[in-house]
Amino acid sequence: MKRILLSLTCVMVASTGFAQQALSWDKAPLASPVVNADNTVTFNIVAPEAQKVEITGDFLPVEKVKTSHGVQEITGVEQLKKNEKGVWSYTSSALSPELYTYNLIVDGVKITDPLNVSAVRDIASMFNIFMIGGGVKGLYQVKNVPHGTVAKVWYNSPTAGLTRRMTVYTPAGYETSGTKRYPVLYLLHGIGGDENAWSELGRATQILDNLIAEGKAEPMIVVMTNGNISQEAAPGETSEGFKTPTMMLPKTMDGNFETAFPDVIKFVEHTYRVQSDKNHRAIAGLSMGGFHSLYISINNPDTFGYVGLFSAAVDKQQSGGVISVYENRNQKIDKLFSKSPKLFWIGIGSTDFLYQSNVDLRKYLDSKHYKYTYMETEGGHIWRNWRIYLSEFVQKLFK
Amino acid sequence: MKRILLSLTCVMVASTGFAQQALSWDKAPLASPVVNADNTVTFNIVAPEAQKVEITGDFLPVEKVKTSHGVQEITGVEQLKKNEKGVWSYTSSALSPELYTYNLIVDGVKITDPLNVSAVRDIASMFNIFMIGGGVKGLYQVKNVPHGTVAKVWYNSPTAGLTRRMTVYTPAGYETSGTKRYPVLYLLHGIGGDENAWSELGRATQILDNLIAEGKAEPMIVVMTNGNISQEAAPGETSEGFKTPTMMLPKTMDGNFETAFPDVIKFVEHTYRVQSDKNHRAIAGLSMGGFHSLYISINNPDTFGYVGLFSAAVDKQQSGGVISVYENRNQKIDKLFSKSPKLFWIGIGSTDFLYQSNVDLRKYLDSKHYKYTYMETEGGHIWRNWRIYLSEFVQKLFK
Repeated sequence: MKRILLSLTCVMVASTGFAQQALSWDKAPLASPVVNADNTVTFNIVAPEAQKVEITGDFLPVEKVKTSHGVQEITGVEQLKKNEKGVWSYTSSALSPELYTYNLIVDGVKITDPLNVSAVRDIASMFNIFMIGGGVKGLYQVKNVPHGTVAKVWYNSPTAGLTRRMTVYTPAGYETSGTKRYPVLYLLHGIGGDENAWSELGRATQILDNLIAEGKAEPMIVVMTNGNISQEAAPGETSEGFKTPTMMLPKTMDGNFETAFPDVIKFVEHTYRVQSDKNHRAIAGLSMGGFHSLYISINNPDTFGYVGLFSAAVDKQQSGGVISVYENRNQKIDKLFSKSPKLFWIGIGSTDFLYQSNVDLRKYLDSKHYKYTYMETEGGHIWRNWRIYLSEFVQKLFK
Repeated sequence: MKRILLSLTCVMVASTGFAQQALSWDKAPLASPVVNADNTVTFNIVAPEAQKVEITGDFLPVEKVKTSHGVQEITGVEQLKKNEKGVWSYTSSALSPELYTYNLIVDGVKITDPLNVSAVRDIASMFNIFMIGGGVKGLYQVKNVPHGTVAKVWYNSPTAGLTRRMTVYTPAGYETSGTKRYPVLYLLHGIGGDENAWSELGRATQILDNLIAEGKAEPMIVVMTNGNISQEAAPGETSEGFKTPTMMLPKTMDGNFETAFPDVIKFVEHTYRVQSDKNHRAIAGLSMGGFHSLYISINNPDTFGYVGLFSAAVDKQQSGGVISVYENRNQKIDKLFSKSPKLFWIGIGSTDFLYQSNVDLRKYLDSKHYKYTYMETEGGHIWRNWRIYLSEFVQKLFK
């Protein structure tokens, strides 16, 4: 019997070409990354033939460099050191609770860590993730709490002329809660992202599961759309096959997404048991998604009771397209506030390149004595901030 | 305006550390892999500092090697060639329609292709995928057809003492079909896999969408469980955090999964609108999942009208555990056939290491004149075969 089982293991492994790793499982296998007791982290890679191995990641100090577009923050790079067995290693300083991302660089080629299968895509690149302490306040961790369902759902958008994919989070108990109706948060991603962004790098699922379990957020449905209106779905999930993604697709910030957004609401309210009134609808997004959230909400002032702008672009970006969406922004903001929204929430990092445009927006709101909530964090235009903003924002919804 | 947008692009890119790729998007970017018009495929990697770059993948001829466990098939390896710009390339021979997997090897380190974000995990390794011609009969491709919903759902298993994750496919139209009830296929993965295996490497979603759209398969719910009964969910999706997966977890083939399986059925029939009788329940699986399917069905002869064994292990594997599950196999098979199952389906590759044990099983069935359907394909214990078996099997269900 044991012989058969061993064969089963060996052949399955050989058939996918990874016999080497499998055999090493019998010994104490080399792991990477290893989170040490003091919250330093050790990275390892077996590369006896490599000349140089480096690591880059958002846990390393950023370097500020001047470019023609102003000061930019460049992720740091550190060297790994090789031991006599050809294993290269690097140990970080002690890290704060957070979700971190990194890549290794072997002889100049940026790669994902071969020993770490926790890898995610952001725009056109893959990188690895690891976590210290379950992330900020432990909210990014899968815990032993009731879990919501995360579904990839297709909806018809007549306005876009496409069938499109979205990610829908329904809270724990939704399926068996009979006729109960739920409020809805529409949660939008940034440039280069898609319908997978918030559930993967954004940890939206874990944040919602945990805050609902703690009684800090209301059970709600979260609808994560794809903001690239010319695209059916995330790269590899479309009828175009496994295409390499690009940063910015046509029509992404030219008013077409905003114009087609009612198709999303219509589908959601037809498909799910939702509370379909303004005070049970929220919209929020990061960067481009904040931009979309702003313009969708002010163009539809009776639709959303809650608006969240996370490191949002707030000024018109592209020329052409559905120009009317971006016209008369401030008058539209006046209209929105004349209808007493429950919450208008702005979050931004102190070094974000969009900081000044958000200062200007707040100045306008202040000049009109409009009530809004403002959160300023350290750092720039990064996922670390967006996860924090989501965690704060959802605690204020539907109460 | 353009200046702001450019900044938005640059800062977002810099913040995630991928400025280099972004800048290259302005020119004609280097891609990999490139499927050429004649179905040869060119792989490219920028690695001016590397000494050697190789490729390994299931599109290359396998090499047969003798080991202490018998003849094994080892995936081939080919060299890439460097040009004057430091770009290494390799072009394959013309390939048949199929989904293929590969890794690059840079100075001895097996990596995923930095230019290809289509990467999937199998057991403890990541590799890239690409497709020729939409796969076999075009079934593995996302097409412009109505799409089902794919949900990650958690269920309580009192028998296992865990809350566990599964993948549930509901066919297009399920959400809005009122009181309509659907048949269910329980679809089980192999050793080292989890609840993501069939929807990722197995292309189960695309196969079902396409066959249902063509009228060749009945609309059905497909429930893809996690067969590692000591595990809550796929690696990285559990309360244990981002752990490195291992090939074989405790209790995986010792009767505990089979014993806990009624918890799955109970949850599904409580949560979804299903037809809950034998002739509207099917169970099938690959390798270990075929083993599970066999023993679950014969221990519950009134539960499943359709049974599919894809490259299945059919003999007891581990010692200990819930021994009764594996006792008296042939008498239990007699009992199953005494109840006239609608379909007993066996598929295996001609070089599969489990071939002989399937011959022996068929001999037993033949000796009793039990009716079953048999499909033999080329090749061994590989996903290529399992996708074909699924495509064939689901066309025979619930008709």
